Amino acid sequence: MDLLQQKILSEGRVIGSDILKVDSFLNHQVDPSLMHAIGAEFASIFAGQGITKVITIESSGIAPAVFTGLMLGVPVIFAKKTESRNLDTETYHAAVHSFTRGGEYIIRVSKRYLTSEDTVLFIDDFLARGRALLGLLEIAGQAGARVAGAGVVIEKGFQDGGSLIRNMGIRVESLAIIKEMSEEGLITFTDKTTCPTHMKEEEK
Amino acid sequence: MDLLQQKILSEGRVIGSDILKVDSFLNHQVDPSLMHAIGAEFASIFAGQGITKVITIESSGIAPAVFTGLMLGVPVIFAKKTESRNLDTETYHAAVHSFTRGGEYIIRVSKRYLTSEDTVLFIDDFLARGRALLGLLEIAGQAGARVAGAGVVIEKGFQDGGSLIRNMGIRVESLAIIKEMSEEGLITFTDKTTCPTHMKEEEK
Repeated sequence: MDLLQQKILSEGRVIGSDILKVDSFLNHQVDPSLMHAIGAEFASIFAGQGITKVITIESSGIAPAVFTGLMLGVPVIFAKKTESRNLDTETYHAAVHSFTRGGEYIIRVSKRYLTSEDTVLFIDDFLARGRALLGLLEIAGQAGARVAGAGVVIEKGFQDGGSLIRNMGIRVESLAIIKEMSEEGLITFTDKTTCPTHMKEEEK
Repeated sequence: MDLLQQKILSEGRVIGSDILKVDSFLNHQVDPSLMHAIGAEFASIFAGQGITKVITIESSGIAPAVFTGLMLGVPVIFAKKTESRNLDTETYHAAVHSFTRGGEYIIRVSKRYLTSEDTVLFIDDFLARGRALLGLLEIAGQAGARVAGAGVVIEKGFQDGGSLIRNMGIRVESLAIIKEMSEEGLITFTDKTTCPTHMKEEEK
């Protein structure tokens, strides 16, 4: 998705060799019109899959998820990371290891809103080590829901989450896949549409 | 806002005398088309106020806030409740007392995204005791930003937050104001548009 890649190149800040800060448009300050375009893109990619629910994890997945849900015409569920009086006690839950924060957290989805009748699409802001998606897959499994796939805004292609989830047979569609980030701040994308073909040509 | 009041009446669940569960469309499962309508309503109410940023607190305020930001054509900031490697170290911050969870939490906004040049609109899902809005006001004060007002999806009119914030001279616009909830599950709204006028007529 060109618009997104341009935004990452112009506003993303690389910290060290593996942190990409995109808090100017995605996970602290949010660009609503970009989120709108991202939602439209995911809805177009996953159209016709019979999706009944979009699921994300609070908080940074919510903005792209609600626009995706709007375009697909289905409700959005955000899994909760904290217990609250406002959440039902009857929940599906899974432990997620966080490499960003260190330690584990529990994600919860009320049993009221997810059943074996559902076909779900996961949406998240980042895919790096894949642990959040694994947690969502575990929750979908507990509910007996069918998984149509996962829509990811930014995938860190140099980490193992993408292959981990894809090797489980789950369709993962990432709007920007980062091949490499250098400590000098250079960001290189995997260009899904042309790069692999081009490389194959050269290999001949 | 009729659509919202109908949704609260048909899907809201009253627990005890002061908890209203609206997790089927607002704070766990989210109805994107209702959020879209809510965003349009807030944008219409606060049009022409020179708003440059919409600010909310993660997580349940994000959905109504991003649609409001989309309609106003401005970025949305969600204040973070937890520290993260992804957030700048230079932040405005305020302590917020939570009656729902018990205890205090700290909300943070990066100094990079809020300055004295900004005019802000706060958006939140609930207004009850007003502590979250007080925290956002404190942060806006630290930044020297002008406050255009606060848009609230559901106000618990029987708690003191609304009068607390309005008495500070802040414009608060709530799309549904609950006058009363009974333990039997009955919900009564304050009808802003007709009730006060009607009552004045009767008082004559």
